[in-house]
Amino acid sequence: MSYIIRPWARKDLKAIMGLIREAASFHKALDQVKTTPEMLRDEGFGKDATFGCLVAEVPPQQGSKEDGTIVGYQFHYLTYCTWSGHILFGEDLYVLPDFRGKGIGSGLLAKAAKMALGKGCSQLRFISANWNQPAMDFYAKLGAVNVTVTDHWNLCSIEGEHVQKLVERTRN
Amino acid sequence: MSYIIRPWARKDLKAIMGLIREAASFHKALDQVKTTPEMLRDEGFGKDATFGCLVAEVPPQQGSKEDGTIVGYQFHYLTYCTWSGHILFGEDLYVLPDFRGKGIGSGLLAKAAKMALGKGCSQLRFISANWNQPAMDFYAKLGAVNVTVTDHWNLCSIEGEHVQKLVERTRN
Repeated sequence: MSYIIRPWARKDLKAIMGLIREAASFHKALDQVKTTPEMLRDEGFGKDATFGCLVAEVPPQQGSKEDGTIVGYQFHYLTYCTWSGHILFGEDLYVLPDFRGKGIGSGLLAKAAKMALGKGCSQLRFISANWNQPAMDFYAKLGAVNVTVTDHWNLCSIEGEHVQKLVERTRN
Repeated sequence: MSYIIRPWARKDLKAIMGLIREAASFHKALDQVKTTPEMLRDEGFGKDATFGCLVAEVPPQQGSKEDGTIVGYQFHYLTYCTWSGHILFGEDLYVLPDFRGKGIGSGLLAKAAKMALGKGCSQLRFISANWNQPAMDFYAKLGAVNVTVTDHWNLCSIEGEHVQKLVERTRN
């Protein structure tokens, strides 16, 4: 299988949005997807863009009928740990089912790791659903540590009306 | 208790680093702290800074002998969810033990929430150790959802030699 890994471009937005929606469907969370290709374009390509994306592309004759030549993506941004400094956070990693087992997922992550080192990061962080055993096995093979298991870190979120109520507590 | 919440300044760096180390000690992870006040200064105050910090400050006569007038901090950066858009991520929230129960922690988080709304974020995310019951109770009272429990999201990390090995897989 011939493929290249490259940074996203505006022309990829529709295809990437399709993959984002496929990944969300897999997580039974399609109703949570509020983003649009226009939002990703406006927020992802300006000089103030705080995130980026890598895509895996195959030649047209090898592409998928529905999804075209973009068969996987890795979405990331720079974060900072007060203990260890800069960290690249991988928000999503997704490869179309028909294109798995060919090294595309690890290829995307490898390119993200190279980018991370170039930005002075000491590590890659990401979240994964613990019921997704193929994903957890894939990450474990690459040397990933599940810090929710080892160090009991849990991910929490404050949303909607609770954010509004919090803001009402501000005094200055 | 009189206090103000304000963005950090260079003069606060030594005090904040002290609090970062105290919080790490509480997590029995002081050996993981590689950052220095100089790193935070160089990486946190330039035009390319990707993170920020709020501090809680009390008047000198109410300060702590060891730590001075900075009695708490909230460290954050902007992230992006491909499902819901911009999210403010709270990396750390810490208040000195003698200054807890006075609304300083929620005051810091409220100011972060206000900042989040101003930046178009739909939510606040953060991690918390699930054995830290007072912290988990505090967040639950503010309406936080533990998405590790509800949606089984686990936090993973690839570090050190494993990042290097990953990079060696890059082909282009």
